[in-house]
Amino acid sequence: MQPINGIGVAKVVDSRHPDFKGGDLVWGRTGWEEYSLITRPDPLFKISNSDVPLSYYTGILGMPGLTAYAGFYEVCSPKEGECVFVSAASGAVGQLVGQFAKLMGCYVVGSAGSREKVDLLKNKMWFDDAFNYKEEPDLNAALKRYFPEGIDIYFENVGGKMLDAVLLNMRVHGRIAVCGMISQYNLDKPEGVSNLMSIVYKRVRIEGFIVFEFYHKYPKYLDMALAYMREGKIIYVEDIAESLENGPAALVGLFTGGNMGKQVVLVSHEGKKDSANQ
Amino acid sequence: MQPINGIGVAKVVDSRHPDFKGGDLVWGRTGWEEYSLITRPDPLFKISNSDVPLSYYTGILGMPGLTAYAGFYEVCSPKEGECVFVSAASGAVGQLVGQFAKLMGCYVVGSAGSREKVDLLKNKMWFDDAFNYKEEPDLNAALKRYFPEGIDIYFENVGGKMLDAVLLNMRVHGRIAVCGMISQYNLDKPEGVSNLMSIVYKRVRIEGFIVFEFYHKYPKYLDMALAYMREGKIIYVEDIAESLENGPAALVGLFTGGNMGKQVVLVSHEGKKDSANQ
Repeated sequence: MQPINGIGVAKVVDSRHPDFKGGDLVWGRTGWEEYSLITRPDPLFKISNSDVPLSYYTGILGMPGLTAYAGFYEVCSPKEGECVFVSAASGAVGQLVGQFAKLMGCYVVGSAGSREKVDLLKNKMWFDDAFNYKEEPDLNAALKRYFPEGIDIYFENVGGKMLDAVLLNMRVHGRIAVCGMISQYNLDKPEGVSNLMSIVYKRVRIEGFIVFEFYHKYPKYLDMALAYMREGKIIYVEDIAESLENGPAALVGLFTGGNMGKQVVLVSHEGKKDSANQ
Repeated sequence: MQPINGIGVAKVVDSRHPDFKGGDLVWGRTGWEEYSLITRPDPLFKISNSDVPLSYYTGILGMPGLTAYAGFYEVCSPKEGECVFVSAASGAVGQLVGQFAKLMGCYVVGSAGSREKVDLLKNKMWFDDAFNYKEEPDLNAALKRYFPEGIDIYFENVGGKMLDAVLLNMRVHGRIAVCGMISQYNLDKPEGVSNLMSIVYKRVRIEGFIVFEFYHKYPKYLDMALAYMREGKIIYVEDIAESLENGPAALVGLFTGGNMGKQVVLVSHEGKKDSANQ
């Protein structure tokens, strides 16, 4: 049976590929399994800095980190002082976008689905503010409260009603980087978004992106992220499910917001079977 | 009573502004009236080339022309050979976008609301193909027929169901320049657009724009448009309503597709009262 694919961290047992040798630590496309046969290292990055938790290479130092970096810096073209809104803000990508935006001198508000997540954003991750979208019957009114002068940048992770409310609150020349629309993935028919006229009125740019088109920027990003981490300027929160057996429940939990921070499935510890999958 | 504003062509009767003098022909923001008192020339462009129909300065040589130019060349970043779809394609702006795209070596299809308009696009304006959206019960199927490999550039004038169908047919890195959404202007609540996930899957960029942000490009555009016209490489079709009394009906006709080409209201002929308003 074909294993489910995922982006994981692993130790090379044996390799015929000239770039990899037994004992190398790597991150990239692996399977939800204890041992993977990888025929195409596409992508597979060698891990040189192992003085940080290896699981971080499924998060801040891996694909979600590069996603946040590419989406925020490359797609959103942010400027100091701009007003930034991040949905799914305590997730693997959102927590980093918000912290990058704060480091750039932006005003940053995040939305999340529980009081604990909101506390995390406000008290640990330096967000200027955060709110629980489940407690807001009127998302438009909530956004008007947090962004009385409007939103310059929206980092879109959820879609649907949130996007519709955001469109009403965009500022002139606002930018929306579309990373994902998790609220829409499991619907038979996606929700209709009605407020697209704002795109003309406010000259808004909406742009979708996918991280694999930015893999060439990974070395530059890694240097930046490691420096920020070592200086204590960025923190990263993970939610680790122990053992492969708990993987399916952890995956399902992403869609109900059960996770707190980046969801990781720990297949085995380094030195044992050496693999941690997202 | 305040007159309705519009972009018109006029002759200056008298002026205290240093840039304008009696007898000058101008185009810019005027009123739906025989004589206008213009206190802010914002914008008001002097007409130097009067060897073309003066009404063209309400169209190809004026605001709609610059709109087509800015939206197509600046917002869509077109490349030779790309597949371009234009809605409201026989209108003031659409007919130019399609012809600019053809001149660039693109494959161009337009949609319009009558057989006569479709004929005009195919037989007079060099569009590769065109269809009557009112005869297409399934817009997605129609677009798949005309764009079997998908759409690189969509010049959006209508919104609603057409945008929803276009989103399903965009190619990777497609661009949508949002000029207007005429199908939505008079609805109590705009239609919902459901297929926005394509923005992520296909890394689509959607961008709204407004012509007044491109007025500094007008001299460059005018040179280009005059040259194309004189070489016979571009034609421009107008629908002229004679006399101000017919203006309101002509305006209403825009929303039912009554016009064929750029709708102009002729207030008076040059040499008489000297004013033609859009």
